[in-house]
Amino acid sequence: MWKPDRSRKTPIYQQIADYMEHRISFGEFPPGSLLPSERKLADELRVNRSTVVAAYEELRSLGILVSSKGSGTLVTNYNKGNAASLTPNWKEYVNGGNFLPNLPFIRRIREELRKKTDMIDFASGELSPDLFPNEVVRELLQKHPFQEQLGYDDPQGYSQLRETLVSFLEHHLHIHSTESSILITSGSQQSLYLILQCLLNPGDAVAIEDPSYCYSLPMFQSAGLRLFRLPLDEHGIDPKELIALYRKHKIRMIFLNPNFQNPTGHVMPLDRKLKLLEIASELGIPIVEDDTFTLTAFDGNPPPTLKSLDKNNNVLYVGSLSKIASSGLRIGWLIAPQTVISRLTDARQQMDFGLSNIPQWIANHFIKEGHLDRQIQFLREELVKKRDEFIRGFDDILADELTYSLPQGGLTFWCKINSAVDDFKLIEEATKRGVIFVPGSVYGSSKGCIRLSFARPQFEEILPGLRQLALALEACRK
Amino acid sequence: MWKPDRSRKTPIYQQIADYMEHRISFGEFPPGSLLPSERKLADELRVNRSTVVAAYEELRSLGILVSSKGSGTLVTNYNKGNAASLTPNWKEYVNGGNFLPNLPFIRRIREELRKKTDMIDFASGELSPDLFPNEVVRELLQKHPFQEQLGYDDPQGYSQLRETLVSFLEHHLHIHSTESSILITSGSQQSLYLILQCLLNPGDAVAIEDPSYCYSLPMFQSAGLRLFRLPLDEHGIDPKELIALYRKHKIRMIFLNPNFQNPTGHVMPLDRKLKLLEIASELGIPIVEDDTFTLTAFDGNPPPTLKSLDKNNNVLYVGSLSKIASSGLRIGWLIAPQTVISRLTDARQQMDFGLSNIPQWIANHFIKEGHLDRQIQFLREELVKKRDEFIRGFDDILADELTYSLPQGGLTFWCKINSAVDDFKLIEEATKRGVIFVPGSVYGSSKGCIRLSFARPQFEEILPGLRQLALALEACRK
Repeated sequence: MWKPDRSRKTPIYQQIADYMEHRISFGEFPPGSLLPSERKLADELRVNRSTVVAAYEELRSLGILVSSKGSGTLVTNYNKGNAASLTPNWKEYVNGGNFLPNLPFIRRIREELRKKTDMIDFASGELSPDLFPNEVVRELLQKHPFQEQLGYDDPQGYSQLRETLVSFLEHHLHIHSTESSILITSGSQQSLYLILQCLLNPGDAVAIEDPSYCYSLPMFQSAGLRLFRLPLDEHGIDPKELIALYRKHKIRMIFLNPNFQNPTGHVMPLDRKLKLLEIASELGIPIVEDDTFTLTAFDGNPPPTLKSLDKNNNVLYVGSLSKIASSGLRIGWLIAPQTVISRLTDARQQMDFGLSNIPQWIANHFIKEGHLDRQIQFLREELVKKRDEFIRGFDDILADELTYSLPQGGLTFWCKINSAVDDFKLIEEATKRGVIFVPGSVYGSSKGCIRLSFARPQFEEILPGLRQLALALEACRK
Repeated sequence: MWKPDRSRKTPIYQQIADYMEHRISFGEFPPGSLLPSERKLADELRVNRSTVVAAYEELRSLGILVSSKGSGTLVTNYNKGNAASLTPNWKEYVNGGNFLPNLPFIRRIREELRKKTDMIDFASGELSPDLFPNEVVRELLQKHPFQEQLGYDDPQGYSQLRETLVSFLEHHLHIHSTESSILITSGSQQSLYLILQCLLNPGDAVAIEDPSYCYSLPMFQSAGLRLFRLPLDEHGIDPKELIALYRKHKIRMIFLNPNFQNPTGHVMPLDRKLKLLEIASELGIPIVEDDTFTLTAFDGNPPPTLKSLDKNNNVLYVGSLSKIASSGLRIGWLIAPQTVISRLTDARQQMDFGLSNIPQWIANHFIKEGHLDRQIQFLREELVKKRDEFIRGFDDILADELTYSLPQGGLTFWCKINSAVDDFKLIEEATKRGVIFVPGSVYGSSKGCIRLSFARPQFEEILPGLRQLALALEACRK
């Protein structure tokens, strides 16, 4: 991104005025557009707010901008000889359509992270960059000449990768599948989006764990579904609750994350899994199993997945490389009966004409040559180190403040705050102190909880981050 | 894909029975599912239909399948001790949701091409594999070590690629843009999908050229839009028609493909482009310019794009590498005002969490190091050779049958059939003879036309394909 050049003779404010005029004249901000606020632009360009004020003042004096209290700084119709010319009312257009915007908390967190690159990030439920297999991917690219076609690939995904996944999932997770029952997607997000868009209709009732990361995804709301909550105890949901919910609301689908659940980290025990499958099968309801974290099991013994226990084909199985190897490859998979796979494949073609085969070709080599096995081994060790550093910090710094459950897999801690604290206030005080995380309310009804990612921060950031969190909690209680 | 092994002692029909039982028991075809028809499976596995009949008979005798006239071959509830167990009614689920299936003609064409790999393909509007820069991409991958992060990339797209595109588009097409007004997409399909989903609402009226490839995309229908036709003459649409259409139906957006239009190949002359922009600007209507083919201009002088003439920011510009370099990289771009780009970026995140940066990183090197320039030069020469071979064929073989207009760019011929012929019959007769193309009705109201891709077939397939087409036409007239 452009930044002002401090070595040039032109004053910084003038450089910014020129830069914004360029963006305006090149159509990025048509007449009537709102410019970024002075504060926001100053943050982005790393300059004082007063410098941006001077730049905007320059453009106002040229008649390009106009500012008013309350409605911000707008681009004028400065270059119009012809008064009849209208720019489309873009603001009205972008308010149309099907996608609701992200939750305010999520937007806030993303903005803070983008703005302040030195923020200690306990918010992102993903690996820190040093935990990605960067070196291995580089080597794979050098070692294997790319011999595949550069044309459209099989819409269901690169067939060699599907074959490799059949063996991998059989071997590690005892999941039976066939090449033709797998759809390669760009990750769990796309798998869920396709399921919501193709298999459900607006008004349909679905059951979701409470808390669940699903509540943080606007796509569930955008699809016009009625969401019903299945409360979690420390062993996941109680399968019997499903029967009552089904009778009352005619539940059409269940979304579950049974192993190392996001956000709670809970694992559903085998007896509940079996009971759940029995009930779902009696009622004929499909279960969407999001199985992102099972392979991270720190003790090396992944708990069984619903899919591996599924005798009646009730489970649509969603997996991905994003949280265990690389989010940047954008590789996930969905296992389902043929009729579902065909429908979703056709819909995906209509959305984006399928995935590039290059990341799929890399993923195939990565899994087939045993790199994923080694990555998971490496990850378990590194994640345990970070988790344990958090525990040291909890015990030393936050012993009276938080109650946590010990994660045996996954990437996050789920903590209960012992005193009553307002979510908004806490985030405010924490970001002020350079640390950020996700308030529990984002994941459903549970107040007074927070989710802390131990995978994302660097090891040496953990204790300083927890110290700032303690100070933020203290400030909230004042 | 699996094929029976003729060297094994197990009879072929038994191998097929075992293979299908495996797929059934692994959940690909749950109880109640419809199996592929005997004819279809025989085609896929390249065996006689009677072999599949024997295989299905074997599974029927085991109680796994049941067949009935009219409803095909279904999987039974063969492994159920518990009569209460229900598989979800997948058939009902896949009928839900927002995506309409593809047009029957399009499905038919895809199926024929999948089934018979020796079919001469005049249908696919894309490059033949030898026209892709396979060697260059292989070399780029070997030459540049991949140093980028494997984490989530900028949701708007890899920033170096956006920078490179700003210069490329400025230099070749005189399009002014800024890095932050570009969204990298997986191709024109995704760009259009995002525009339809985010900027329009069901019931909105949009204007589309007639004929246009847009009518072949079910996403326009799926979005619940009202489509109004702007008829084309040999110079594209008449801009004045837009005024009447706007007054009558309150058109909210216009979809145009002004240069080497798909399917007609027409180029809109400069005066019409200027008039259209003037009218759109007076009415305040956005124009979506699909600019897939401009750079193919065979004479080396690309006609001006609407975007380069657009003074009032009415144009949303859609481009891609798919038709000129590689459909397999899945790289396209959209240029729009900031407010539109932010909205579409956010929605794309919700759909698929963004693109892998690896193909974007390759595309950046490809464009920046001048390979795209060389590719376009190469492509122009090769496409002209193929086009001229078609012309030879038209003159020698089909002179009395077809009237065509001479394409000066793009990948396809648009031909009028001189005698009255039924579309369905013609496709039937042509595929029987091993040649396939797209009937004009797929692209809108025009009957009696066909689109022939000269880019897709191999040079030496062109005359034999046209000879078969002539025979098919003859058969239709009988």
